[in-house]
Amino acid sequence: MSAPWTLPAAVELRDVGPRDGLQVHRPLPLEQRARLVRALAAAGLKRIEVGAFVSPRAVPAMAGSGELLELLGPLPGVTRAALVPNARGARDALAAGADELTVTVSASEGYSRSNTNMSRAEALAQVEAIGALAGDAGVPVDVVISCAFGCPYEGDVAPAEVARIAAAARAAGAARITCADTTGLATPPRVAALVGKLGAEIGLHFHETRATGLVNAWAGLTLGVARFDSSVGGLGGSPFAPGSAGNVATEALVHLFEAAGVATGVDLPALLDASRMLAELVGEPPTPLARHGGG
Amino acid sequence: MSAPWTLPAAVELRDVGPRDGLQVHRPLPLEQRARLVRALAAAGLKRIEVGAFVSPRAVPAMAGSGELLELLGPLPGVTRAALVPNARGARDALAAGADELTVTVSASEGYSRSNTNMSRAEALAQVEAIGALAGDAGVPVDVVISCAFGCPYEGDVAPAEVARIAAAARAAGAARITCADTTGLATPPRVAALVGKLGAEIGLHFHETRATGLVNAWAGLTLGVARFDSSVGGLGGSPFAPGSAGNVATEALVHLFEAAGVATGVDLPALLDASRMLAELVGEPPTPLARHGGG
Repeated sequence: MSAPWTLPAAVELRDVGPRDGLQVHRPLPLEQRARLVRALAAAGLKRIEVGAFVSPRAVPAMAGSGELLELLGPLPGVTRAALVPNARGARDALAAGADELTVTVSASEGYSRSNTNMSRAEALAQVEAIGALAGDAGVPVDVVISCAFGCPYEGDVAPAEVARIAAAARAAGAARITCADTTGLATPPRVAALVGKLGAEIGLHFHETRATGLVNAWAGLTLGVARFDSSVGGLGGSPFAPGSAGNVATEALVHLFEAAGVATGVDLPALLDASRMLAELVGEPPTPLARHGGG
Repeated sequence: MSAPWTLPAAVELRDVGPRDGLQVHRPLPLEQRARLVRALAAAGLKRIEVGAFVSPRAVPAMAGSGELLELLGPLPGVTRAALVPNARGARDALAAGADELTVTVSASEGYSRSNTNMSRAEALAQVEAIGALAGDAGVPVDVVISCAFGCPYEGDVAPAEVARIAAAARAAGAARITCADTTGLATPPRVAALVGKLGAEIGLHFHETRATGLVNAWAGLTLGVARFDSSVGGLGGSPFAPGSAGNVATEALVHLFEAAGVATGVDLPALLDASRMLAELVGEPPTPLARHGGG
């Protein structure tokens, strides 16, 4: 019997480990952050979120992201994305040579106010300002809609509400929309509902908070989605913590997708090398996949 | 849009934590093992593998499984299963009151010889001897086919080969067949191929060695399989180790399946209580789900 699901022939992965992953860690030296980015590029990752232009007091681990971009220089064939929260961050990221900007807008008004001290309308105004700057520089903007699958304060988030934010973000200049499961509330039915409403051209960004990150990615794949965020070593949230509650691990996505005949462009052994190197840098044991290999 | 998959209305879970999980641990006192089994039964698990009748020198943590069964006594509505490797173990388990016997046969000749010191033909002869004893006692036998999705020594295992073992096991008296992914080599396409060959009435038993356990269970569910093994707290293999490389965690299965509208009969908050209790017993941090809850 052939498999009963139809999958895209290829996917595009964005490794957010150097940003979403490392941001919860004690700061690493710039040279180590650069080594991680280069190892990911060497493994075949074509889109890497390398840093964030945020307050170094709020997120010490992301300090020096401009110097990091300059240290890295252009990486042939690789999009070096940077997270920016506002126009000032966008100006700095563009000046440092970022190839793409990422901006977060929450689908939940409560989460937006509690965690970013902005209303959603104010966040969308930032997207517009960032979009104008990026447009002048010829750099695309990816708007990540956080809490797209539920909110820790407000509970369920209606797909129609996410679609409204997505439309506003596109109108403000977003070239791409990514739906993020900020606190691990997504499940396959919620993924199906959201993809049904927004279409399969969105990107998906999952966490393993409730152990469902990889399952949600698989569900998204069977729904035709072909763009995923992940983090080398499952870094992020509670990185390398028992049970791994960070981002979906890039090596898990690559192992799973390639086994299902979906091209990722990533060389799994090289990626596992990068994961083991990262584990050493942050002083944690490697993920099971990095221990066992993908074979 | 409604979800594009069709799922069984309900599943039957067998928690193998007190056996497959605890066997890799330092031995726990009988009273603690009994407390775990009772907590699982109270959470709604209707089938629990409580122990193994194996050499206490080989597996110290399973010593005293007969006394454990006697200490527990009959649990109304709950099948207390016991793993037995041979006729002697079967006699002891039946004498102690086991409600079901589990026997393992490897789909791989190399794995069978290396890890059990028996050929597959010899293992099937044990199934026949065990089946005869169990039949006399009116107790069903579940044959678990290990390495059903691949072998660490021999690589791919053909579904037709697994089907041959399954047919032989049924002929030797097995009431149920469970296909186990002993070393985490299963992927959704391999699950589809095996279910296509053996039919959806098999049970599935997955590990998180390569982070794909829950994805494989989900894939099996979308293929119509309605019987799964799992282990409270993801115990087993490298229990509670970074990245959790043990069995699929029962709480992850329950959270995922219930979210998809599939009845498990398990009360998730009570199960998370049991998982946290277990974490305390074995001296490890709880799983992410047990920390975050299923909400």
